Amino acid sequence: MAKKVALAYSGGLDTSVCIPILKEKYGYDEVVTISVDVGQPEEEIKRADAKAEKISNKHYTIDAKEEFVKDYVFPLIKANGSYEGYVMGTSIARPLIAKKVVEAARKEGAVALAHGCTGKGNDQLRFEAVFRQTDMDVIAPMREMNLTREWEIDYAKEHGIPVEVTKSKPWSVDENIWSRSIEGGRLEDPSFVPPEEIFEWTTSPEKTPEQPRIVDIGFEAGVPVSLDGEKMSGYALVKKMNEIAGENGVGRTDMIEDRVLGLKARENYEHPAATVLLAAHADLEKLVLTRSELKFKKIVDDQWSELAYYGLVDEPLYADLNAFIDKSQERVTGTVKVRLYKGALTILSRSSPNALYSEDLVSFDSQTIDQKDSEGFAKYHGFQARMYRKVMDKQ
Amino acid sequence: MAKKVALAYSGGLDTSVCIPILKEKYGYDEVVTISVDVGQPEEEIKRADAKAEKISNKHYTIDAKEEFVKDYVFPLIKANGSYEGYVMGTSIARPLIAKKVVEAARKEGAVALAHGCTGKGNDQLRFEAVFRQTDMDVIAPMREMNLTREWEIDYAKEHGIPVEVTKSKPWSVDENIWSRSIEGGRLEDPSFVPPEEIFEWTTSPEKTPEQPRIVDIGFEAGVPVSLDGEKMSGYALVKKMNEIAGENGVGRTDMIEDRVLGLKARENYEHPAATVLLAAHADLEKLVLTRSELKFKKIVDDQWSELAYYGLVDEPLYADLNAFIDKSQERVTGTVKVRLYKGALTILSRSSPNALYSEDLVSFDSQTIDQKDSEGFAKYHGFQARMYRKVMDKQ
Amino acid sequence: MAKKVALAYSGGLDTSVCIPILKEKYGYDEVVTISVDVGQPEEEIKRADAKAEKISNKHYTIDAKEEFVKDYVFPLIKANGSYEGYVMGTSIARPLIAKKVVEAARKEGAVALAHGCTGKGNDQLRFEAVFRQTDMDVIAPMREMNLTREWEIDYAKEHGIPVEVTKSKPWSVDENIWSRSIEGGRLEDPSFVPPEEIFEWTTSPEKTPEQPRIVDIGFEAGVPVSLDGEKMSGYALVKKMNEIAGENGVGRTDMIEDRVLGLKARENYEHPAATVLLAAHADLEKLVLTRSELKFKKIVDDQWSELAYYGLVDEPLYADLNAFIDKSQERVTGTVKVRLYKGALTILSRSSPNALYSEDLVSFDSQTIDQKDSEGFAKYHGFQARMYRKVMDKQ
Amino acid sequence: MAKKVALAYSGGLDTSVCIPILKEKYGYDEVVTISVDVGQPEEEIKRADAKAEKISNKHYTIDAKEEFVKDYVFPLIKANGSYEGYVMGTSIARPLIAKKVVEAARKEGAVALAHGCTGKGNDQLRFEAVFRQTDMDVIAPMREMNLTREWEIDYAKEHGIPVEVTKSKPWSVDENIWSRSIEGGRLEDPSFVPPEEIFEWTTSPEKTPEQPRIVDIGFEAGVPVSLDGEKMSGYALVKKMNEIAGENGVGRTDMIEDRVLGLKARENYEHPAATVLLAAHADLEKLVLTRSELKFKKIVDDQWSELAYYGLVDEPLYADLNAFIDKSQERVTGTVKVRLYKGALTILSRSSPNALYSEDLVSFDSQTIDQKDSEGFAKYHGFQARMYRKVMDKQ
Repeated sequence: MAKKVALAYSGGLDTSVCIPILKEKYGYDEVVTISVDVGQPEEEIKRADAKAEKISNKHYTIDAKEEFVKDYVFPLIKANGSYEGYVMGTSIARPLIAKKVVEAARKEGAVALAHGCTGKGNDQLRFEAVFRQTDMDVIAPMREMNLTREWEIDYAKEHGIPVEVTKSKPWSVDENIWSRSIEGGRLEDPSFVPPEEIFEWTTSPEKTPEQPRIVDIGFEAGVPVSLDGEKMSGYALVKKMNEIAGENGVGRTDMIEDRVLGLKARENYEHPAATVLLAAHADLEKLVLTRSELKFKKIVDDQWSELAYYGLVDEPLYADLNAFIDKSQERVTGTVKVRLYKGALTILSRSSPNALYSEDLVSFDSQTIDQKDSEGFAKYHGFQARMYRKVMDKQ
Repeated sequence: MAKKVALAYSGGLDTSVCIPILKEKYGYDEVVTISVDVGQPEEEIKRADAKAEKISNKHYTIDAKEEFVKDYVFPLIKANGSYEGYVMGTSIARPLIAKKVVEAARKEGAVALAHGCTGKGNDQLRFEAVFRQTDMDVIAPMREMNLTREWEIDYAKEHGIPVEVTKSKPWSVDENIWSRSIEGGRLEDPSFVPPEEIFEWTTSPEKTPEQPRIVDIGFEAGVPVSLDGEKMSGYALVKKMNEIAGENGVGRTDMIEDRVLGLKARENYEHPAATVLLAAHADLEKLVLTRSELKFKKIVDDQWSELAYYGLVDEPLYADLNAFIDKSQERVTGTVKVRLYKGALTILSRSSPNALYSEDLVSFDSQTIDQKDSEGFAKYHGFQARMYRKVMDKQ
Repeated sequence: MAKKVALAYSGGLDTSVCIPILKEKYGYDEVVTISVDVGQPEEEIKRADAKAEKISNKHYTIDAKEEFVKDYVFPLIKANGSYEGYVMGTSIARPLIAKKVVEAARKEGAVALAHGCTGKGNDQLRFEAVFRQTDMDVIAPMREMNLTREWEIDYAKEHGIPVEVTKSKPWSVDENIWSRSIEGGRLEDPSFVPPEEIFEWTTSPEKTPEQPRIVDIGFEAGVPVSLDGEKMSGYALVKKMNEIAGENGVGRTDMIEDRVLGLKARENYEHPAATVLLAAHADLEKLVLTRSELKFKKIVDDQWSELAYYGLVDEPLYADLNAFIDKSQERVTGTVKVRLYKGALTILSRSSPNALYSEDLVSFDSQTIDQKDSEGFAKYHGFQARMYRKVMDKQ
Repeated sequence: MAKKVALAYSGGLDTSVCIPILKEKYGYDEVVTISVDVGQPEEEIKRADAKAEKISNKHYTIDAKEEFVKDYVFPLIKANGSYEGYVMGTSIARPLIAKKVVEAARKEGAVALAHGCTGKGNDQLRFEAVFRQTDMDVIAPMREMNLTREWEIDYAKEHGIPVEVTKSKPWSVDENIWSRSIEGGRLEDPSFVPPEEIFEWTTSPEKTPEQPRIVDIGFEAGVPVSLDGEKMSGYALVKKMNEIAGENGVGRTDMIEDRVLGLKARENYEHPAATVLLAAHADLEKLVLTRSELKFKKIVDDQWSELAYYGLVDEPLYADLNAFIDKSQERVTGTVKVRLYKGALTILSRSSPNALYSEDLVSFDSQTIDQKDSEGFAKYHGFQARMYRKVMDKQ
């Protein structure tokens, strides 16, 4: 029986050279390649398919766009997911891709799982957190062989793998429907100002429309369901929101980020829809959740985000946190009006049937609470600090 | 001996009518008024002085501008101070004003302390957290007498107090050098879009310069010390930054906020300098603090912010937190380059002598760490989640 | 129609004098009394019933023992509930009592709700957190009238209320099946050593059996279901555990506690079953939950405990937290062996079908992990602290 | 010049065979051994010295007992240090030992640092967190060579290393003045009840004195300074307290612990002094710290403990946390009375000049606060939960 290995395949140089490497250097008979569509540019998927046709023993292209939005992006919105203030994108797609690879591997009777990540970044850890739950071998040729770009290009040519790129590549890009990351090259220097050319999803603010774009975003139970009153599927909504916000220059991030292994790295991101949807969601939560919920959910959200960034969606804690979050989101229904203009996002107004603020509510309680009641409250405010002062004054 | 009461005095209608009220209704012989300059508009101070001259028994005007920036604004920057995501402004000035009132009261031999806050808001609690540490009586005429604006205007006229305002006032404003808040009237409705007229510190983004403004902000030990390389005092720096950011439309916030007593309120703010300085400070921290510090300091900062919002700067915990923060800030020195354009703020680059990222550092450790080392790390990543999976699979 | 008030009734002096007071001073026509049995001593319930027969217009005795254990004690066990290290008892019973009072009040068409708590403690707040959710008036005669014990005794005699007690009462006691609290009198002094006479549920360690008692406690989904292999109802199990632990001197607490209003108070407690069941539960959790779950659940548990102590079981956050906790407890099934001897509790051993430790699991992973893998891990352990050291050394 | 390696030396089999291994297998010319006295049994130190005399090229014995207590144990007491509820002992000694090894290595001009830990436990990580801050090579022969006990004994005999032990060793023990850990063998099974023979520091409760021992522990600024009124040095105090508590059977722990790498392990400990001093310290804190401090310090203490357990005392966060803790401990001065009896510890009473509770303080504030004031407070207690109820009721 043929000894098969399943490879997460992007169509890029790294994963393409992995195919002959897995046979020649690791001794597998067949390489099954799996490309997972999580909303990266269509031409990227097509290019991967075309290439795989030539060099892979069997190729799967799995459309996981709606699943990605429903099961990974929407939970992130409910959790106000952010890692060190950055909108996560790459990280939340990795476990889904890895799971699809494992599924295909099982179907094909593969005995090993492979990915094309190096040993410096986060993605190796995210892939393997899923891969290593199986009994299959886990292979990371890039990490194990310490390859250079030059070597890979030569090796690709020798093995008849089409190479579109030149030997130097200015930056390294990763895309899915939720986020586009740009890193590497001169961008690694935190004091280097990123050139406008690195951006593809967002128009430069100087070139955006002169009129602000105002959008109404409708939420149900913590997730966006409509734009300007029009209901749409998760994927369609995120795509549309990316276009609207992107053309108004909204959704860029430049930051120093701590990778899982501990290295600091300078990262640039574009995530127009994410910027807007997260801001709107957080604003709506302030209207409907209690202060205690808001305060504690921030802690829950931070922990959720750390697990998501680490790719640990199968850690039991992740399910526990989601139970909390889902319960809290039952009431997060309503509409938020947002203004987008030349790179700036402004929340204009919000409303909800579950608002904990309304004139009705205020008048309800003013039947029973009057101004004088706060005197009693005021006397207890800072009570122990006063005790402390008295103790210190006596000494 | 004359029975004196010391009154925190703003020159507005509420605190002005307090003067005769404290005599007529509360039986004090003399009212000592204290205006504290924390950077509100100069004309406001002058108006308060002019009015006090006429109606107060003795008046103090205390210039606390530099003290406010040094002892209240700068610690807030070090703590990335924000309450539910809002840049605090009013809250951090109240304890300082209250302390100045207590000082003057002691000097004058007053037996009571008074403020003009109502029983609905936060400020009564912040004033009294300081006032009630003394043995003096604490008086809150607005809260105790439940006065209406109409009654106050009539009463003021009867007592020869100049009244500039009409019987209806669209919004209630509070200002200091760090922040301007606008609330009340139709703004109370969370779904009402604020009209442009409520803003005074920030130019409408449609009317700002067509060229982006780029600023270099220099920090030492966590606090800003220079703009575009020019050193300045704390107060001058914040003032200048307010102008620069304000004229580029940066620094507006519209939010639902939970007041200390528990009511939700819709608040609008302008805080141009705060927006920029806080963003720059947070960015610089990411370059110099360790991941563990960043993660834990977020918790410390949130707790600091809650105390600051509550006005509890004399709670011993506040000093404990500052000890942590000050220790962490020793290394937060460097420069952050920021772009301001039509309401949007973009961090462009940053540098620091204490950066935990640099090519030197990376090459230092790559002597001892190579890509293969992360295989060992990867095997332990998500280890217990795998154990869990095995246990579940057996069942 | 008669104007009725519903009163939470314990049979003690305070709530007994409330009955005529509610008529004479507050003008109600009828007082409906409600005693809720949450496991306090039987004679206490009987005494309350007998007294109520004479002086109340209508009396309810509601057996809520099993409900109390199932809906309040068991969630507390799952949450490792403790406030400042103290096993909560009084606090978790109050909301249930208040809810039963509200139910009876609705049935009787009462227009007001009353309790006999003073204005110094926590219980007024816990009762009213439930009462004030209704549209009924809330009355607290003890707080409003500032009564003394002497006055109450005289007033009781005048109104034909049987008085068993003398004018001085050394301590104030509260009991339910989960806990017995003793406070007041000389105990208020933190430096006063409590005399043996204050304890009723626990034998003095010097007088307990000379042989240790070993107990096996069985848990399912986070709650205890059996003792020494014998299944029992929640109430029966807690009762039995109280006897076993109490006769071995286990389950006393002496502590300084911060009340909700901010006063510190010295409290003594007896809670034998609670001490044992909580220790056993926490030990079992360490065997089956992941490290990440244990670490984060501690934070969840602390927040749960604060809400429970405050009596805020209707705060939406409480439900959110329970969703997290219930999810995490699904696997907390197993047995813990405990030794009780002369006041000391020792965990001896534990086992679970869901243990994340077992020889099988260890050998499973040792197929894939060997000692050398930890070298890679070790190189990243403390990585940023090393970077920091390098930066500092250069300066 | 001789190529030297510095070895952390305990005198046991593992570190003894490291000496010839470092020469034969790693090619060093000389091995410098360093034994650090952190309070382990005197005979252990002597045995190490005697052995080293024979087989080491140069041997250091460093008395770090007082330093260990002052710089590692006392900060732990101030931080209520515990990892997953366990009193840390081994973990806090490792960084000190490692630092002494580095000092000696520098003095001797060594080019490498070695330890005898395996690749399964925590200690390799703790040693290397210190070692890897230098430019010296780091060597872990046990981890790298995967040796068995049998092989080591044979190898030791061949190389003239005295071997006291038999080929099977029932448990593995680690001791310092603060803690004694016992693990391995049948103890690894969480359901195995530990036999009495594993304990050496604590008398079996059945055999302890029939009279309780009552001790007064004096604290200054968070650290213990006296026993029964007698001042003593840190080391002397801990030693004395170990004797007193140990002979009354107090200070055993049996627990499931999550090691740094992620494995769960069953551990048994003896730490009599630690049990008593930590309980007394925590009790005193409740008397003098504010509720806010107690609540937040718990979070700080947990983070401190995690770093300490991980051996990351050079992480900058550790210094930040200590700044917080030291500030908070300034007032933690006073006396706690404790009863020890047959394995049980009972806090009897406590007093402090800085107590936030006293009759004086209560009467001070009752001048200004009366019972009725809590009505106002009560109306705001649970306010948002009521709003929530109203919103839900309308739907």
